[in-house]
Amino acid sequence: MNTTQHPSLQAKVKAKISIAGAGPVGALLATILSRANYQVNIFESRADFREQKHYQGKSINLALSDRAWRALDIIGATPLVKEHAIPLYQRIVHTQDNSQISQNYGDEQQAIWAISRVKLNEILLAIAEQEPLVNLTFNNRLTHLDFVNGCSVYANHSEHIVKQKEVESDLTFAADGAYSKVRRLAQETPRFSYSQHYMEQCYIELTITANDDGSHKLDKNALHIWPRKHFLMIALPNSDGSFTCTLFLNHDGEPSFSSLQEKEDIKAFLSTHFADVYPMLNDPVEAFCQKAANPLFLVSVAPWVFNNKVALIGDAAHAMVPFYGQGLNCSFEDCREIAELINIHQDDWEQILPAYQKSRKENTDAISKLAKEHFQEISEFACEPRFILKKRIEAKFHKMYPKLWTPLYTMISFSADLPYSLARQIGKRQDALMEQIMLIKDIEKHWQEDFVYEKLKSLVKQESKTFI
Amino acid sequence: MNTTQHPSLQAKVKAKISIAGAGPVGALLATILSRANYQVNIFESRADFREQKHYQGKSINLALSDRAWRALDIIGATPLVKEHAIPLYQRIVHTQDNSQISQNYGDEQQAIWAISRVKLNEILLAIAEQEPLVNLTFNNRLTHLDFVNGCSVYANHSEHIVKQKEVESDLTFAADGAYSKVRRLAQETPRFSYSQHYMEQCYIELTITANDDGSHKLDKNALHIWPRKHFLMIALPNSDGSFTCTLFLNHDGEPSFSSLQEKEDIKAFLSTHFADVYPMLNDPVEAFCQKAANPLFLVSVAPWVFNNKVALIGDAAHAMVPFYGQGLNCSFEDCREIAELINIHQDDWEQILPAYQKSRKENTDAISKLAKEHFQEISEFACEPRFILKKRIEAKFHKMYPKLWTPLYTMISFSADLPYSLARQIGKRQDALMEQIMLIKDIEKHWQEDFVYEKLKSLVKQESKTFI
Repeated sequence: MNTTQHPSLQAKVKAKISIAGAGPVGALLATILSRANYQVNIFESRADFREQKHYQGKSINLALSDRAWRALDIIGATPLVKEHAIPLYQRIVHTQDNSQISQNYGDEQQAIWAISRVKLNEILLAIAEQEPLVNLTFNNRLTHLDFVNGCSVYANHSEHIVKQKEVESDLTFAADGAYSKVRRLAQETPRFSYSQHYMEQCYIELTITANDDGSHKLDKNALHIWPRKHFLMIALPNSDGSFTCTLFLNHDGEPSFSSLQEKEDIKAFLSTHFADVYPMLNDPVEAFCQKAANPLFLVSVAPWVFNNKVALIGDAAHAMVPFYGQGLNCSFEDCREIAELINIHQDDWEQILPAYQKSRKENTDAISKLAKEHFQEISEFACEPRFILKKRIEAKFHKMYPKLWTPLYTMISFSADLPYSLARQIGKRQDALMEQIMLIKDIEKHWQEDFVYEKLKSLVKQESKTFI
Repeated sequence: MNTTQHPSLQAKVKAKISIAGAGPVGALLATILSRANYQVNIFESRADFREQKHYQGKSINLALSDRAWRALDIIGATPLVKEHAIPLYQRIVHTQDNSQISQNYGDEQQAIWAISRVKLNEILLAIAEQEPLVNLTFNNRLTHLDFVNGCSVYANHSEHIVKQKEVESDLTFAADGAYSKVRRLAQETPRFSYSQHYMEQCYIELTITANDDGSHKLDKNALHIWPRKHFLMIALPNSDGSFTCTLFLNHDGEPSFSSLQEKEDIKAFLSTHFADVYPMLNDPVEAFCQKAANPLFLVSVAPWVFNNKVALIGDAAHAMVPFYGQGLNCSFEDCREIAELINIHQDDWEQILPAYQKSRKENTDAISKLAKEHFQEISEFACEPRFILKKRIEAKFHKMYPKLWTPLYTMISFSADLPYSLARQIGKRQDALMEQIMLIKDIEKHWQEDFVYEKLKSLVKQESKTFI
């Protein structure tokens, strides 16, 4: 809504903030800022996806966990978003020999929540648009940004005419995603450290259709996973009864998107390695052939904040790989940090922005590393007996002594007040102790016996630190 | 020299290779390739520096060690280059309290060699120009490069007219340095991993003038170093009796290039921390004020080789920080690798280039990390008693058992056949063993006694690996 139509609002407006990008992060941030009495202009380069039949954009399914909810709580959006999400209480591992192993994500009531990115974006944009201080413009592509004075230029490409518009702002947030234009422009600023790292793996999406009655063909309250060591498929439920499957496979080598070119080879590959689900997939060979494999990359930059006039947020600042399911959770946590710092520093952006960068950079570096490392855990170890045993011992110990030990996955997904970087440090110390437990002779036989947990308890106490 | 004037040469020419950049690496590579019967076109964006009064370009002094000599041996350039270089047998540490500590670089005869970058470049270009198959063109800036077919476009900016020239090559080497244009263009290729990391430190150069009789004011056969923990100055001798000093100092914070703005503060800073050399410096306060601080950064990329048509080499592939004095040594080693692979794979570039990338990438990553870590060693530890003691024990042990232990610096600088990555691994294992030796009670008193070396010897043997 345009504030020029609301002169009464102008009086209390503290400053003018631009946001590049109207994805979930831009929309959430806009609502947070406007409710703190900032005038917010969001510019989105794409057309309004709500007016289009086919949504163009990143489509990896999302799983929201506690960090996302904590951020959405700030604007009261949690109940509405949960209405459109499906809780997943466990990971179901589909082994190569067609058996299934269930692994709870946390305690019985703890779940991660699957939701369509489009739906989530829709909800958050609708909330932002109700804010009198938010002004949302589509089809406006950022073409220039002055990192010293914060002025930007947007080009409007609609109706086959290009109109340039200069925008003055007290502050610009770049919420323009993994391929951020602002970040690309920032590469021209002095002493800008930048890294983009491509993974060996690429991905495509396949679909499991719904049953005729609209029900799901697999347990819908689980994330399904087919770990195959060097490649991997996962499936997340959609609310229409279908599942979206994501196949992660190397770009080169054997097998890979490069080596699998012939239809019969693709069919053999899919039906051999994903035998249980192959019959449920919607024309998978055709889909495999027609879709270009998407790259997976992670981005790390420094600084995030330029002259206290421009700040990166979300994937623009820290695009990561999806293996820990934390990308958007982490980006929403960026927004929560901004909200908290506005309160702490009473709208003094000269303090807010450096504090934001300092606190978030270290934590996003940590989750980005964890996400990269997690590929091996889910692709290689997820069905390895000793790995599964370790997870079981850990879960049992956590249940016995919840104040002494929280598993890393729980710290990341269900402990929203624990910073990622601290969780990672604790996780490393836990690994070292679990190594000692796994050295117990015939641990496979004895893992349920008390002495194992007494030993782990004494090891934890020796460290004289608790693993919260 | 242009081969069109030498039709007799054309018959034996194997293929046409372009080199972007006529620095020391481009010039050395051109001579190597032309002597292997390739027609080589070098394009340099700058004007011929030999025709100019003031050389524009990177000016950090160079120190050449065995890896450089080994590469220069291939074209027989070592004796000529050594004529213009000054051997440095030791590092002389100037402590804050104006005492001096000498540390030999290796055995008594082992030296690193200081040389002016301009002189070295001049020598290597003169050699390349004598090759009938080498064609050298200045003032030609690369504007376009097709990474699939290897075609490139150069623009000639001389005489205020821009002439564009299309160049077809079987292969293009990018030897265009730390700010490589080819590498920048490569960022548009698919799945290009790229990282540029800026250090906290920047640098400026100051000068110690010669005595009136042309002699040096400090020992000329040493690298002088003023370690001051968070900052650092080094001095390398020039053949005209002067020294070039490089002051490394943080960009921000206290003290830093940002904090030191007033002339009196600069004077106080320099005269306090570099008291012994301050009177010898040529107008240091003025020089400090007038020079913009240069950034220090490291670059890491993958791949280096594109469709076997374009390959990065030298700083274009692996720009590093100068703290180990290995930048050009490492780049020359890239050229040596190419020379050796041409022989091994008998001019089959489909094999040469992947092998080049595989072998060099891992080794340049290793030396780049070592160079970054080395700042702490030379700025912080160089005058720390326990560190110095460790180095002495190591040197003594190496002298007693040269086949069991070679210090890391020697492996890097004087063991040209030992790959950097292996040297780094060995160095880490040595560190762990030396930690145990330093735990010996009152090691400061006992370090010359036999039992210390017997213990170290048994530790090495326990590892059942020798530290060559």
